[in-house]
Amino acid sequence: MDIVATTKGDRRGPKFQARRQQLAQAALVTLAELGYARTSLREIAHNSEFSHGVVHYYFSDKADLITECVASFRELSTDAYADILAEPMTAEQFRAAVVERVSERVSTGWPYHRIWYDLRTQSMFDDALRDDVQSLFSMFYDTTWKIVSRYAELAGTKPAVGPELSYSMSDGLVQRAVSRYIHGDTEAIPALRRGANSLFDIIVPLNDHS
Amino acid sequence: MDIVATTKGDRRGPKFQARRQQLAQAALVTLAELGYARTSLREIAHNSEFSHGVVHYYFSDKADLITECVASFRELSTDAYADILAEPMTAEQFRAAVVERVSERVSTGWPYHRIWYDLRTQSMFDDALRDDVQSLFSMFYDTTWKIVSRYAELAGTKPAVGPELSYSMSDGLVQRAVSRYIHGDTEAIPALRRGANSLFDIIVPLNDHS
Repeated sequence: MDIVATTKGDRRGPKFQARRQQLAQAALVTLAELGYARTSLREIAHNSEFSHGVVHYYFSDKADLITECVASFRELSTDAYADILAEPMTAEQFRAAVVERVSERVSTGWPYHRIWYDLRTQSMFDDALRDDVQSLFSMFYDTTWKIVSRYAELAGTKPAVGPELSYSMSDGLVQRAVSRYIHGDTEAIPALRRGANSLFDIIVPLNDHS
Repeated sequence: MDIVATTKGDRRGPKFQARRQQLAQAALVTLAELGYARTSLREIAHNSEFSHGVVHYYFSDKADLITECVASFRELSTDAYADILAEPMTAEQFRAAVVERVSERVSTGWPYHRIWYDLRTQSMFDDALRDDVQSLFSMFYDTTWKIVSRYAELAGTKPAVGPELSYSMSDGLVQRAVSRYIHGDTEAIPALRRGANSLFDIIVPLNDHS
């Protein structure tokens, strides 16, 4: 109950906000495990060291909690390719590094991927999720286009496919890989690698590849 | 209670099965409206002319109902492109007809699309849905490849992209369009048309298009 004591009377202060973030990070684990529909403040408390009362003190309701979870999720995902994008390398090295990273992210980070698939599907039924989903979408969309642009730049050429279709094609590929991986398909990761390499060829065709 | 009277004592008979199908078709509407997580036998009864008892007579539990709903859904979707695939036409006419059909299916059939996105995401959390989702996946996968193969055949060429990636790319495109459409984006359908045409060019490149 120490947490409550240090923040009581300071509901909008930085400590209160810090505790919310800490709880949201813990809640992400529950969200990844149970999915949006079955996640509740009670379930979050049950899966954490905190009481239902404490969780409820920091979050007015499920929507409030989900928004904070999405903010944590954004923070976890936003720099997923930042090191690869920043490092100087050849187009070929860059492409290999991206394929490696996306494979790693599916095989070790699939619970986070499924949070995203879950939230965006639920937002088709529940308009309250719309802004949170839009903010995540923008991040993934921007990251995809940064990767495409950087690869084209390193290869000294221009992308043949625009950002919207580049995103949709990559998204379809990764979602299929996550689904296969979760269902125990041992071909999921090899197929993802092949698919990602093909997408690079399609989106940024190089003369020596054609 | 007429329904119960005519089938009592004949639980595995054709009449019993016919009533199950009839109820499953009604249940699809609830599933499309509320999503998997919020759909229950009680909710189905509430949205139909039948009592909870009648629904429960025909379905042992939610899993049983969902399986029958998926069967109805399969039946509704399996022939979605059959007429276009069967008709003799030029490659160009075929492509235009497919783009028209997929646009129509998003703008008028988006509730059914979202059932599919919902079920496949929920199957990432609940293994009980796996076989139903796999059967729907196979259908969509096969339909995509039939369309690609037929277009290539009419154009007198071969696809440049295999079935797995063709499916993933189309899936990403259509899911994005459904999401935009549901959220009231008036550019959803024009973007889908442009994207579908680009995908045809990518998957089956024609000499006179390059």
